[in-house]
Amino acid sequence: MLFQVRMDVCLPHDLDPKTRSEIVAEEKQYAQELQRAGKWPHIWRIVGEYANISVFDVESNDELHALLSGLPLFPYMDIHVTPLATHPSDINA
Amino acid sequence: MLFQVRMDVCLPHDLDPKTRSEIVAEEKQYAQELQRAGKWPHIWRIVGEYANISVFDVESNDELHALLSGLPLFPYMDIHVTPLATHPSDINA
Amino acid sequence: MLFQVRMDVCLPHDLDPKTRSEIVAEEKQYAQELQRAGKWPHIWRIVGEYANISVFDVESNDELHALLSGLPLFPYMDIHVTPLATHPSDINA
Amino acid sequence: MLFQVRMDVCLPHDLDPKTRSEIVAEEKQYAQELQRAGKWPHIWRIVGEYANISVFDVESNDELHALLSGLPLFPYMDIHVTPLATHPSDINA
Amino acid sequence: MLFQVRMDVCLPHDLDPKTRSEIVAEEKQYAQELQRAGKWPHIWRIVGEYANISVFDVESNDELHALLSGLPLFPYMDIHVTPLATHPSDINA
Amino acid sequence: MLFQVRMDVCLPHDLDPKTRSEIVAEEKQYAQELQRAGKWPHIWRIVGEYANISVFDVESNDELHALLSGLPLFPYMDIHVTPLATHPSDINA
Amino acid sequence: MLFQVRMDVCLPHDLDPKTRSEIVAEEKQYAQELQRAGKWPHIWRIVGEYANISVFDVESNDELHALLSGLPLFPYMDIHVTPLATHPSDINA
Amino acid sequence: MLFQVRMDVCLPHDLDPKTRSEIVAEEKQYAQELQRAGKWPHIWRIVGEYANISVFDVESNDELHALLSGLPLFPYMDIHVTPLATHPSDINA
Amino acid sequence: MLFQVRMDVCLPHDLDPKTRSEIVAEEKQYAQELQRAGKWPHIWRIVGEYANISVFDVESNDELHALLSGLPLFPYMDIHVTPLATHPSDINA
Amino acid sequence: MLFQVRMDVCLPHDLDPKTRSEIVAEEKQYAQELQRAGKWPHIWRIVGEYANISVFDVESNDELHALLSGLPLFPYMDIHVTPLATHPSDINA
Repeated sequence: MLFQVRMDVCLPHDLDPKTRSEIVAEEKQYAQELQRAGKWPHIWRIVGEYANISVFDVESNDELHALLSGLPLFPYMDIHVTPLATHPSDINA
Repeated sequence: MLFQVRMDVCLPHDLDPKTRSEIVAEEKQYAQELQRAGKWPHIWRIVGEYANISVFDVESNDELHALLSGLPLFPYMDIHVTPLATHPSDINA
Repeated sequence: MLFQVRMDVCLPHDLDPKTRSEIVAEEKQYAQELQRAGKWPHIWRIVGEYANISVFDVESNDELHALLSGLPLFPYMDIHVTPLATHPSDINA
Repeated sequence: MLFQVRMDVCLPHDLDPKTRSEIVAEEKQYAQELQRAGKWPHIWRIVGEYANISVFDVESNDELHALLSGLPLFPYMDIHVTPLATHPSDINA
Repeated sequence: MLFQVRMDVCLPHDLDPKTRSEIVAEEKQYAQELQRAGKWPHIWRIVGEYANISVFDVESNDELHALLSGLPLFPYMDIHVTPLATHPSDINA
Repeated sequence: MLFQVRMDVCLPHDLDPKTRSEIVAEEKQYAQELQRAGKWPHIWRIVGEYANISVFDVESNDELHALLSGLPLFPYMDIHVTPLATHPSDINA
Repeated sequence: MLFQVRMDVCLPHDLDPKTRSEIVAEEKQYAQELQRAGKWPHIWRIVGEYANISVFDVESNDELHALLSGLPLFPYMDIHVTPLATHPSDINA
Repeated sequence: MLFQVRMDVCLPHDLDPKTRSEIVAEEKQYAQELQRAGKWPHIWRIVGEYANISVFDVESNDELHALLSGLPLFPYMDIHVTPLATHPSDINA
Repeated sequence: MLFQVRMDVCLPHDLDPKTRSEIVAEEKQYAQELQRAGKWPHIWRIVGEYANISVFDVESNDELHALLSGLPLFPYMDIHVTPLATHPSDINA
Repeated sequence: MLFQVRMDVCLPHDLDPKTRSEIVAEEKQYAQELQRAGKWPHIWRIVGEYANISVFDVESNDELHALLSGLPLFPYMDIHVTPLATHPSDINA
């Protein structure tokens, strides 16, 4: 079951640089594990913004919230979720 | 080069039903041709709305506008385009 | 799996009154069948508006879109869907 | 008398972690007492957000404001209230 | 129990003038009956707009919706309701 | 001459608690003096929000601005003013 | 007493051209009478829009609403009123 | 003196096709004359929309409004103007 | 050439009071010099807000930006500029 | 391939003045190098705002994001990108 997820990152300017680097590194590792597990099939950077548009593939709303709220950057992001369904014109559907 | 495209369809209530059916059928054929050509790799229905979120893969902005303005439903849609770049955490990049 | 759904109805003022009555009656029957089937556990009127806030309980995004796009009033409504998850403070969870 | 209430939590990043934990624990206890008392019949997490959509069942607007302004997280939340009425298609009404 | 209600009127330009006059006259009579009954204690015109800001005094959300949806201009208005509570600084409270 | 005034209070979380208490106490005294003077005939709490909807009765725009900018909480509030006129359906007009 | 008034004109495309010309001519005459009477001291066109920004000088909110609702184009305009006060830096105040 | 101008075209669906073609042809001729005269140095299509972003080079606000309100499509467009100044980092300034 | 300018002031709550007084005093002097020079013919306070609506009379966009960016409060203001043209109904035009 | 880019700068008020000067100087140098390289053909100041409207000319979305995210002011800006296509009325196209 697919969901579009938009994440806008807003790190405080006075965040300790070491803390910042650690969180960003953890975020990358976390994101890549979910991609390898097939839970996060698409992630794109929005041009010009510290933001991404992603697609998640999960079993349930609860699973999706668990994955998103577990993101190391979760306290510093605005996240918006849009549920997706099969489109009748999709040749792969 | 990837772009996210959101399309919201708004057909007038007094549109002739036959005309309507024809346009919708042409739209489906047009969309499927572009999918087969690799130009329109993803199309999803937004749950509960007469709208889709799509990803296009094109050579240039001009090509993208040509494809979108050629949509049979173009005069009846609000379209918003977001340019996408490779995300540094993307394991396939 | 639960989703909040807000529906705002906007019937054209020049709609034929008989057609209007029929659609509204069909909508009621359709809504009550889904309630009896357990798919639509809550429906509330928003005070002062021709609109409702509902909760749907479905197996998937695809099922939810099928139910919503089948509403007799679907062509005359703005619908917005919000996916819901279990809240950690919910005593029934 | 039912009201939909949406609460968006925004805790300052520099809040003392111990204070933060205490407030969140008090909030949970407060929320569960109101649920047990029948005042707060529904609480759902909005997927991907530090926010909830709830339904309150109270005797009056004054009672609702007293309950909401008593929330331990009240100073850190944006709250929006929507009054609900019985829907004519509700099979339980 | 008090509610602020804002009503914005939008009559179609092609409405039959006689129908229009009748609806407006019925609206006035209806509004004045509710004022006399103590249900609609305040009604003010918003300067420069075909709109009003009102205060209603009712027993319940259901009563308020019944009164508002019974307005002869209801199909031609956007209505927004805000529930009000006693203010701690109110000298009359 | 009547004006609707909406005030949304936003006190900084790191405001000294003693300063905060003093400002809030001064605000209450100030608001009650204006009520007694007939300048501030209505004040209501918006349910669930640290905000009020009020009605002021003044001689001029200048007087209204003097009263509002003199509020002890003025530096911490977003204020929006809507000028009101007599409504033709008002039975007391 | 001064008020800023913004007026956006939206004439229906299918309005009879003769009716349209008459309304626009009446509007001009009405606007110029109010200017000569000192009630409408400033009127400016917003560049690129069928809209104006004006300043009115009136005795009361009721007078302002009477003037604005008497505009021949009133049924075809969105009007927004902002009450103005003397600015402490104004050298003419 | 430069201004950015955004124009969104919204032609009514029931416009006579011949009228439509004539207006669009006149618009093109008008736009090209202004380009040749150096008044309209840039015009770009917004990808996916029936809209353009342009830059005008004029002597005054009055001249700009005269040019824009003379556009054959003016009654069918939403236009928004942003005044531009020399940027201190511009190597050509 | 006239421009409407709206300025909303937002001074940080933790600004040093002496610095604050100095900036506000400098702003007043600067504003009055421009008024005397005929560059800033109108300045009005928006009732209830720390904001003003002004009209500037300048030779060019560059001159206007130079004047506005030179305001002592410039770093603490949101400014929005609207270019104005002569209105065809203006009796003084 | 052209893109319109709007950049709004928001430097924290408590940023160290020396740091601030250095970043702004680096930004200017960076912007001028890209202009000389033909990547950033237009940059204009928005009158009254610490913001610019620019046009970039790049080979791909990835190149554009690399250029924008490399801006020394990137952490302090809101950036919005609009893809542009050739306009059919452009005499230079």
